[in-house]
Amino acid sequence: MTELTSLILDRIRDVPDYPQPGVLFKDITPLLADPVALSAVVDELARLAAEVDKVVGIEARGFILAAPVAYRAGAGFVPVRKKGKLPAETFAASYDLEYGSATVEVHRDAFAPGDRVIIVDDVLATGGTARATVELVKRAGAEVVGVAVLMELAFLKGRDRLEDVDLRSLVIV
Amino acid sequence: MTELTSLILDRIRDVPDYPQPGVLFKDITPLLADPVALSAVVDELARLAAEVDKVVGIEARGFILAAPVAYRAGAGFVPVRKKGKLPAETFAASYDLEYGSATVEVHRDAFAPGDRVIIVDDVLATGGTARATVELVKRAGAEVVGVAVLMELAFLKGRDRLEDVDLRSLVIV
Repeated sequence: MTELTSLILDRIRDVPDYPQPGVLFKDITPLLADPVALSAVVDELARLAAEVDKVVGIEARGFILAAPVAYRAGAGFVPVRKKGKLPAETFAASYDLEYGSATVEVHRDAFAPGDRVIIVDDVLATGGTARATVELVKRAGAEVVGVAVLMELAFLKGRDRLEDVDLRSLVIV
Repeated sequence: MTELTSLILDRIRDVPDYPQPGVLFKDITPLLADPVALSAVVDELARLAAEVDKVVGIEARGFILAAPVAYRAGAGFVPVRKKGKLPAETFAASYDLEYGSATVEVHRDAFAPGDRVIIVDDVLATGGTARATVELVKRAGAEVVGVAVLMELAFLKGRDRLEDVDLRSLVIV
């Protein structure tokens, strides 16, 4: 195990029965609250984001890592938000949830043509949101050079929905 | 007008009739997408956050500036979220909206006793969320050394609700 891996895993808290009974939630707030860990994680994600034009963050928790990665990498930041939250013209993509579906949006003019883009998120679970975000970025005329996440929950097989994408995870649990 | 002020104002887009007819929405996404402007704004907010232990960001848009400010200032990041979104034990505070009310929460163990904290947000409007967040941080045992926002909408008089706080705004419109 690398030093970064243990720095991360030591600061992720397991919260039982959240958001519903039987689920063990991986809480990253202790990691975010630690300046040393926050800095190490942002620096490593920004290394993966070298030479991109824009970093995309996914509402809401995804913003917390994607925005400092954009800052550190000298890139712009683009938010992907839940339906109805972006004020100007958008592209929308829907994805399935356990019950029903959800929709995410991006501004139509968020990218310059051919922008090189990395999508940064905190947790890769089923991959539904990440997959929808990849499609949105492409529809908006940019190139997805990769998806980078702090933590991949391997048992949910999100990686299978991103086979065409360069996916990097700082830790896999 | 300073160079930073014009850098900011040039990259804020007015969107008419969002989120409802008659409202002129100040859209900061063009600023966030510009690496030069993003970097300048984060650096200036981080200057105001010198020597704090934690930077607090308010869901969702507030995360986009508060997290890189925490990174840049060498501080930890603490999220204040809408009701039900934080997994562990929380303190909650409610505030009035035009119709009804809303509740925000912070983890009870988010701070070490006496932590020096700055709250960073994108827009100060009526000040309801900022006021509730100040109360939450105090209840959780930390000291609020200031509130720093990118943009203050002066006509909504949010400043009047924060008279006991050191409030800094990069631009006032």
